[in-house]
Parts: sequence; C-alpha cells; structure tokens
Amino acid sequence: MEIITDNYVGFSTSAKGSSTFQAFAPATNQHIPGNFTRATKEEFDEALALAQKAFPVYSELPVENRAKFLDAIADEIMNLGDTLLERCSLESGLPLGRVTGERGRTCGQLKLFAQLLREGSWVDARIDTAQPDRQPLPKSDIRRMLVPIGPVAVYGASNFPLAFSTAGGDTASALAAGCPVVVKSHSSHPGTNALVTSAIVKAAKATGMPEGVFSSLYLDHEHSVKLVEHPVIKAVGFTGSQAIGMTLFNAAVSRPDPIPVYAEMSSINPVVMMENALKTKKDKIAAGLAGSVNLGVGQFCTNPGLILLEDNATSKAFLEAFAAEFKKSIPATMLNKGIHKACISGVKELYDNNNISLVATADQSADNEKNEAQPVAFSIDAKSFMADKALHEEVFGPVTLFVLCKDNAQIVEVLDSLEGQLTATIHADDSDQGQLGGIVKSISQRAGRLIYGGFPTGVEVCHSMVHGGPFPATSNANSTSVGTGAILRFVRPLAYQDFPEAFLPEALKNGNPLNLMRLVDGVYTRDKI
Amino acid sequence: MEIITDNYVGFSTSAKGSSTFQAFAPATNQHIPGNFTRATKEEFDEALALAQKAFPVYSELPVENRAKFLDAIADEIMNLGDTLLERCSLESGLPLGRVTGERGRTCGQLKLFAQLLREGSWVDARIDTAQPDRQPLPKSDIRRMLVPIGPVAVYGASNFPLAFSTAGGDTASALAAGCPVVVKSHSSHPGTNALVTSAIVKAAKATGMPEGVFSSLYLDHEHSVKLVEHPVIKAVGFTGSQAIGMTLFNAAVSRPDPIPVYAEMSSINPVVMMENALKTKKDKIAAGLAGSVNLGVGQFCTNPGLILLEDNATSKAFLEAFAAEFKKSIPATMLNKGIHKACISGVKELYDNNNISLVATADQSADNEKNEAQPVAFSIDAKSFMADKALHEEVFGPVTLFVLCKDNAQIVEVLDSLEGQLTATIHADDSDQGQLGGIVKSISQRAGRLIYGGFPTGVEVCHSMVHGGPFPATSNANSTSVGTGAILRFVRPLAYQDFPEAFLPEALKNGNPLNLMRLVDGVYTRDKI
Repeated sequence: MEIITDNYVGFSTSAKGSSTFQAFAPATNQHIPGNFTRATKEEFDEALALAQKAFPVYSELPVENRAKFLDAIADEIMNLGDTLLERCSLESGLPLGRVTGERGRTCGQLKLFAQLLREGSWVDARIDTAQPDRQPLPKSDIRRMLVPIGPVAVYGASNFPLAFSTAGGDTASALAAGCPVVVKSHSSHPGTNALVTSAIVKAAKATGMPEGVFSSLYLDHEHSVKLVEHPVIKAVGFTGSQAIGMTLFNAAVSRPDPIPVYAEMSSINPVVMMENALKTKKDKIAAGLAGSVNLGVGQFCTNPGLILLEDNATSKAFLEAFAAEFKKSIPATMLNKGIHKACISGVKELYDNNNISLVATADQSADNEKNEAQPVAFSIDAKSFMADKALHEEVFGPVTLFVLCKDNAQIVEVLDSLEGQLTATIHADDSDQGQLGGIVKSISQRAGRLIYGGFPTGVEVCHSMVHGGPFPATSNANSTSVGTGAILRFVRPLAYQDFPEAFLPEALKNGNPLNLMRLVDGVYTRDKI
Repeated sequence: MEIITDNYVGFSTSAKGSSTFQAFAPATNQHIPGNFTRATKEEFDEALALAQKAFPVYSELPVENRAKFLDAIADEIMNLGDTLLERCSLESGLPLGRVTGERGRTCGQLKLFAQLLREGSWVDARIDTAQPDRQPLPKSDIRRMLVPIGPVAVYGASNFPLAFSTAGGDTASALAAGCPVVVKSHSSHPGTNALVTSAIVKAAKATGMPEGVFSSLYLDHEHSVKLVEHPVIKAVGFTGSQAIGMTLFNAAVSRPDPIPVYAEMSSINPVVMMENALKTKKDKIAAGLAGSVNLGVGQFCTNPGLILLEDNATSKAFLEAFAAEFKKSIPATMLNKGIHKACISGVKELYDNNNISLVATADQSADNEKNEAQPVAFSIDAKSFMADKALHEEVFGPVTLFVLCKDNAQIVEVLDSLEGQLTATIHADDSDQGQLGGIVKSISQRAGRLIYGGFPTGVEVCHSMVHGGPFPATSNANSTSVGTGAILRFVRPLAYQDFPEAFLPEALKNGNPLNLMRLVDGVYTRDKI
C-alpha cells in the first residue's frame, strides 16, 4: 500500500508547499524514504474553512450516522492490515505486538463511542415541564442537553501513535460529540498518520459525512500554534510535554475569545508501598513494578516514576528483590531521537545528584545507535527529595526513583508536596489498612485515578475511567482524555425554553424517540412526557 | 439589627485595616453611615488558610450535613427579616418587592441544592466491574464520581445583591459541591453582604461546619485579583462586566497552575420578531418587550438589547405599538453611580450615531439626582449595525436597539455576525415556522438558552436551566451559573481502581447506600452491585 505524503484537506490530498520532511526509524537510526509536505497557509486555511462548513451539517446528523462513521473508521483501520502495523512499528520503534494491541485499543475506543452514541443518554437531557398556573409567576417548559462545541484541533501524541493520535481518543471523542476534527499530525509518525487518515476519509465518504469533518495536516511550529489561534477552532485536545502543552494553552487563552485546551502533560505517578504488602507480596510487587516501569520503554503517561516506602529492613529486602528483577530488563528503542536524548540527559542528572543512589540498572547495555533507553532505578531520602523540585518532574523513559521515608507521616508529607498527578497507587496488605487514612486523603486531592494493589500503566477504556488530574497532569482537572467521559470535553449545555416540538432535538422531544435516560422534573426516567 | 462592618475571616469578625469605605444609597445619592473596613493582607491570608484547612474536612462530610447547612443558610436569611430587605433595597436602589422576590429566589436556590445533594445522583457515579478472566488482560474494577475541586473564590455581582452575591448561585453551588467559599463582597452592597454573611456563619456554626468553610472579605482591586492568584483557590465564580471578568480570567490562566474562571460577562440577547407573530400578537409582544427591557431597570444579564425584525408595514405598526407602550415606562434608580454614569454615556453614543433613530423614550424624565435611568429604544438598519462592532456591545440599562432587516436572510446574517450570547429569543406564529430553519440554526450555535414566544429576562432555577453561553457571554461555554448544573463547575472526576470497599466513598460502594442512579457496566441503575 502506497503511503500518501500529502496533507488531507478535507477529502482531498494536497501538497502545495515546498517544506518537506522525512519520517525516521529510531531502531535503525535512519530516515525512511518519502518526503512529507508541510501544509501551506492556503491549505491550512482551506482545511479550517471546510471544518467550519462541515460543523452545522455534521453536528445535526442523526446520531446513528455518526455512530456508523465511527464504526467504519475502526473497520477501515483494520483493513489497513499489516501495512499499518509495520509502518507504525517502523516509525515508533515499538514492537509489532505492542502496536497490534494499540490498534485493538484504538478500534475498540471508536466502537465504544459508537455504542455510547447509540445508547445516547450521555447528552444529559433534562426536562422541566411547564407549570402555567404557578404563583406568583408561571413556569416555562425548559429542556436542555449537551451539544457539540465546534471544530476541534487534535495534536497527535508521540507515545501512542495510534491510540492517542490521528484516530485516537481525542479524535474519537470529538467526532462522537459532533465536532469536526483537524489533526496536527505528529512528526514522528507521518506515515502512520497518512494511513490512518486515509482510513478515516474512506469511512467518511462511505458513510456520507460532509467534507471537512476531518482534515490532517503536517504543520511547522508556527502553524501548530496558529491552529489553536484560528477562530474556527473551539477546543483543543493534546497529549505531550508540559512545554508544548502550555504553549498551546497560552495561545488559546490569549485569543480574543479564549477556548478550552485539554492538554494531558506531565505526571510522575507516585506509588506507595506499605510495609506488610512488601512483606507478604515482595516478589510479586517487585516483578510487577519492574514490568510497569519498562512498559512501552517507560513512555507511558502513567509510568510509575516515584515509589514511596519506609526505610526499614522490609524495604531493603524489597529493593534487593526489585533490583534482581530490574537487572533483567531489556533496553529497547525509544520513540524518537529527541525523546531518547532527553531521557539520557534526565538520567545523567540523576546520576550526578549526590543525594541519589543507584538501585539497579539493566544488565544489558542500551545501544545508542538504536536509540535504546537504559532502564534504571534510583533512590533518595525523603527530605532531599522534597527539597529538590527538579526531582518532582517527569523523566520520560524506563526510569524510577525510590523515595525512602522515615515513617508513614513522612510518606504523607512527600505526597502532600507533589503537584497534580494522573494517578497515585497504593500497595498494601489488609493489615496495612489502618495506616492508609492520611495517604488516601492526600492522593484523593492530587490525582485523577487512585489504584490499589496494581500498577498505573494500562488505562482501561470504559465509562468510569479518569485519565486526567490536577495541573500539571492536565490543563483542566475537570476532564478525562480516556473513556467515554472524554466526550464531555467537546460539548456545552444548550437550553430550549417553550420551544415547539418540531424545533426540539430528538433527545428532548416529548415522545423520547431515542429512548434516553432523562431527568424529567427531577426524576430519572426513560418515560415519555 | 446591627450591621457588622468587619470582614468575616472564617467565623470571626475582623477589621485590622485602616482603609475603609461607606455604602451608598443610589436613590438618595448619599452615603450611608457606617465604615466598612477592607481586609489587610494578614486577614486575606488567614481567610485563605482557613479555607484550605476546611477543605479536606468539609469535602468529606456526609452529604446530609452539607444539605442541612444549605437549608440552614436559607432559614437564617429569612430570619434576617425586613432588616435585610430594607438594607438591600437601600443599597441597590431596587424596590422592596423586587428584593423580596430575589430573597425568595436565593433561598429557593439554596434549598434546591440541598435537595440535589439528598437525591445525590448528580455525582455521576460510574462503575465498571472487574473481569478477572478477560483475555488478553484481566479487567480491573474501576469506579468514578465527581469530587469537589477545592476552595472557590466568589465575586458578588452588583445586579443581584442577593441571588448572585454573597449567598447566591455561585456560593450555593460551590458549597453544595463540597468546596469552601471565599467571597469578595461587592462594594455596592456591603451591608447586605454583612447581613447575609452573618446568616451563613450562624448556619455553619449551628450545623457543625468547619471554620473556613466560608469567609467574606472587603477587598481593594489589588487583593481582588490576588484572590484569583492565591494558590489555595481552585476555581472562580464571577458575574459582572467583561473588563473585570477578563482581568480575573487573565490572572487565573497566568498562575503557575492555571485554574478555571466561570465568568458570566456580557450579552445583548437578540430577539427575533417574525412578521406573522407581529401581526397576530402585536400588542401583547409590544407590552411584553417593554416590560422585559425595563425589568430591574434593564440591569438583567438577559436584558433584550437587540431586536431583529423585517422592515415592512407590519414592523412599522409594531414599532408604533411598542413606542406607545414604552413611553409609559417609569424611570427608576440604577444600582450605583458608576452603572448610572455608564448607561448615560452608552445612550449618548447611540443618540450621537447618525445611523440610529430614536424609537421611543419614557415620557417621564429620569431624575439624575436619584441615579435614574431613562428608558430608551432606538432603531438602525441591518447593514449599518453589522458594520459597527461597537453596537454589538451591551449598554447596561433599560435600552434596546431594533435592527431593521430587509428580509429573513438578512436576519440570519445579523445573527451570524453576533458574538456568543446568554440567550436568543424568537417570536413567531405557527405560520412563521417554515421560515425559522436558518434562524434556529444560527442561534443554536451562539447562545446558551433559546426562548420561543417569551422574553429572556427571568431565569428559572431548575435542573434544565442554562445561564451561560459562548464567549463573551461567559468565559467557559461548557457551564451554567444558574440551576443545578452550576454545581458541575466546581468538581472534577476521580477514579478508584480495585479499591477496597472500606476506602470507597459512599457513592461508589457495592451496596449503593445513598440509593443513587449509577452507570454500572454501561447500564443506568439504582441496584446494588
């Protein structure tokens, strides 16, 4: 299958520009043949004009049509077969097995949103019926539901070239909400983007979607920011570094009409290990933690980067077991040269820090020529950790830091010193539970997801998932970027007062033709009015 | 009843500062005896420290305790009796009848949030049960709900000294959510604030709330901004001018950790009058419109400031009927000198605009010494209106502008030229409905509430109300500041993965002890797990 190296401006491929770049294979440290063309100002404007034009059409389609579109995208992605898997693996350095799993997740996510649309109650329909005889004033009939906010800009993430990229969670949830999407393709996997975009465009055509419902552009830095600033764009989805996330955030809030940016940025995902858990499940926890730190070469947003435990004989024994396990880690290729370089530099700073000791590193040495990361675990005492804010920042890669605390109170103190997190995890035995009160209270206030007895990597796509958290984990704590709740980022409530039935959306009609769960005069019901 | 002129720092009155100010009675144009003391830096910091300390305690109280607190606030406000009504009327220039109605609304709002808490399902509990045998990976048990975001800063509004101020919708919804509140009292009604604050503090003590759950401060401009910047504050509620709203917004997004600002700012609330409606209901619409423009001396956020209609014989007859009605308007005292001055200056600009004609003004002349506003209605042609962006801005007061359009298409064109609005209204006869498609589509995209056959003033407090809208109506289109949906501004989702029952919040426990409607494995149910 040929890889299209053009932008997709609506349904058309377009390459009017002269600025090009090549994809890169991190595992072989070589460019991949084929020149991708960055969008010109004209193509950029055209994609946005098409999105604007598509919005009123797309947003008012019957939900079943939108559901079919999402299903069709998933099917067309599967139809790309090994071509997609191989290209994605080549561009990301991720093994085929992982890429295959991620494809499943991506398609499952699209189909879950299609299901959500078919069930339909996510629109939070609320109806308060009229009371014409109420004193002193009659009460109007008021009905409200969630409606799409407008065209959304989605920035592909490097670390999930399928699940958080061109047809990833941001795109799936925005399209499900009824918002056209303009993707800024990630420069690390343009060929993957091209294939996935071709699938989306094929699906859009097959299911009768308006042109402009989706565009995918290769953009330079200037236009990446201009995308947020463009008046047509009404919200932004982003997963990546805090630096770029905040650049987009600042551009969005400086517009004449500020728009929301849902940026998922940075998290060190503290894990608390309680003494009795380490006593009773030492080897299991050691193996689980080593696996979690190494998962995806440590390039998960939820990578456990900070392990808190009391400094005592039990934790010493645990660290030995962990070290023995962690030494078996296999260095692997990172997503791109920039990430690899940043990881090496972040690890060097840890080695250079006099308060930090090495716990373990992989016996096998990383091959720099393959952009491999060297798995490594360090330790530090709690006081030194709290005093050094640089250590509270994420080192992206298979790296973790044990913080040795003198007691439970100091564990809570360290947790209280942390910024917002995507996740926080506790390993405890039943006999530890009496000690958990302060810990649970602290993590409840600063993380989006609390895990008990597991590991933060692995983010289930479901109704109850929260992949979010207070700043800097995200730029908007009142949101999740994974799970069906992600759709709530791209909507706003709209009320209709005394509207004739003919002009009400299906979701709010008396007969409840979509059979939604609605809040009618304060009562949850699927009944007709 | 004595009016306390101190700040309330938690439960204590405090007046350590030397900067004082007096309340002002706009109707008599005189200061009211009594010096209110602005908070010092020390008092400001103390109030915020108390809020921080109160948060983990208050947020984890059983919801019934929070509900009792809200009910008690309403009861204590009623207990203030005529003292409150008279003081509020004196400080706001609003007649006693209006203030009495607003008190009812304020107390009703508090009690509605108490009901919402008792029913409880607003927390959007979602549970996805475990599937330990799932292939290729087991599925964890994941549960999520909405939890309070942290202490909230509330800025009292001038135009609703009870319903949008110290114990108004922002405070009620934040307290309901589980967030302590620090109020920046509005300088136009400090005595009203003092009385209401005393009621809140009395209620807090009587229901066993932690000190710091509520503070009320008189702040200079510098500290008004510093309140948004303070690290303890996690969200902001504001109703007022776009200039001040955006000052707070910009302060919030410039923090090291940006926080959301829910600012309800500016709206001209377009009203479309269709020809057949004007034919069949000329006098009723004329009287209704005149009343709506004058309601609260035109100082409603939802005041109908822009009336769109076709320029033809029917609309001419309507304008005559409207003029006859509008001339009977009685000039009345505005909220304060600043608002009165701004209204006079805004109206002068309309008189000075060569494209604008006078439709009608009240026969009775406003008394400037009583800070009265002169009700006035103007007209302009659609093209001139669209060309002059200054006319798209709100003139706060009993002022409206008719825009005469050459046809239905031009009405849509004018609507499409407008910024975001709180409301948009249509008056139509059944026989007009064929003409409404483009109009409904346009207003759906730029307003928070669409009204058919009524007037935008009068915002029902209920589950389905949306008092919000795209910028500049608000700084956050995905929100409402009125109705039970307002609580969703002050929360964030939090997920628990594989958590022991003992550490789960009541809302997520297997037995569903709060009897909530929950989404369990994708099914809405009140059943136990």
